[in-house]
Amino acid sequence: MSEIASGGKAAVVLLSGGLDSATTAAIARAEGFAIHALSVDYGQRHRFELESARRVAAALGAVEHRTVAIDLAAFGGSALTADIDVPKDRPADEMSAGIPVTYVPARNTVMLSLALGYAEVIAAADIFIGVNAVDYSGYPDCRPEFITSFEQVANLATKAGVEGTLKFRIHTPLIQLTKAEIIRRGVQLGVDYALTHTCYAPDAQGVSCGRCDACQLRIKGFAEAGLPDPIEYQP
Amino acid sequence: MSEIASGGKAAVVLLSGGLDSATTAAIARAEGFAIHALSVDYGQRHRFELESARRVAAALGAVEHRTVAIDLAAFGGSALTADIDVPKDRPADEMSAGIPVTYVPARNTVMLSLALGYAEVIAAADIFIGVNAVDYSGYPDCRPEFITSFEQVANLATKAGVEGTLKFRIHTPLIQLTKAEIIRRGVQLGVDYALTHTCYAPDAQGVSCGRCDACQLRIKGFAEAGLPDPIEYQP
Repeated sequence: MSEIASGGKAAVVLLSGGLDSATTAAIARAEGFAIHALSVDYGQRHRFELESARRVAAALGAVEHRTVAIDLAAFGGSALTADIDVPKDRPADEMSAGIPVTYVPARNTVMLSLALGYAEVIAAADIFIGVNAVDYSGYPDCRPEFITSFEQVANLATKAGVEGTLKFRIHTPLIQLTKAEIIRRGVQLGVDYALTHTCYAPDAQGVSCGRCDACQLRIKGFAEAGLPDPIEYQP
Repeated sequence: MSEIASGGKAAVVLLSGGLDSATTAAIARAEGFAIHALSVDYGQRHRFELESARRVAAALGAVEHRTVAIDLAAFGGSALTADIDVPKDRPADEMSAGIPVTYVPARNTVMLSLALGYAEVIAAADIFIGVNAVDYSGYPDCRPEFITSFEQVANLATKAGVEGTLKFRIHTPLIQLTKAEIIRRGVQLGVDYALTHTCYAPDAQGVSCGRCDACQLRIKGFAEAGLPDPIEYQP
């Protein structure tokens, strides 16, 4: 544990193991918060993300890292949890048009609800989530109006919020940044992006495909930031 | 399956197996909805509630009954999920003062989030939850302002809400009823309360204690309704 991490005010940071949440956690740490990382295993089709989350939490000196398992796959409805093909090699205009099949129903609402429960138990008023409304504009639960609305719910739903002992705040430090800006900020803060996992459709060894929407946005982000992407891709 | 249940518009009904959610489901059915029951196994200390949920769903002719497991016990913080004693024999004035230790952090927020994910996948706009702001006034996430706020989140969080294909509505038919009124309504609708489970601290066979807050409210409710409680209690 770093001294910065263990000395500050507690914050719950949702950590998927991806590039965005790793950067978000680094920003929380830089703002002086002690990181209580929360990963949600929502029935992803692969586990590489959760392994990355563990490595990122350790590298950032998280005070604690909890993983909650929940079977969103029981509902189906998404290429990330059900048996639907992840789209590959989509042109940029197609990626930005409409809501992709990789959308998981109510995902961020579920994630934030769990973060809220955890935050209330450890008496942390601050919750960090790495949502982004620029590159992933297709996801409704990444938009500022959703976050504002959930923040209101958080303060009405909880004993701590109602009794006034905590005023919950949902921090979204990446929400208006481009992928290139996120990467530059993370590199400034010393994030080791080799530890992160982005791909929706990795091979059996966890090597990224380089062709799904998430890989394409990552590759483009590093290119635009003028920085090398430290992970390898399938040939 | 009854004809009423299978013919109507789909609604997701949160079903705990208790008296309130059984009545809520019966009201949804009486309003013509086809019931898609959702039970959440959030690390309760006993499983009798979930067994009751299965029996109630079957008795009400639910089209479908799904159970999602989620380990809220990992966070602790409640007598219902952590190793804290359930209070017994509390006088009524003490029960109604403040938030009880049986409060589960962010419970209804998590439940409604899951119901929302399920509702979006099956294209149901209507979600029923048996919260009550009269007898359980201690729980912040049972109040109308919380429900209204969550309804706003639901419509901002989802593809269906944002695209306007569904306008989500959270139905809380019990919210302003006393326990006696809930029981009378349920009996009118043919609910078999012998199938329900209420107790926070049953014995190993599932027999209710008759002394925890939940049992006391149930017993008082049947007495005030002038109706016999069909379940047995520990001597």
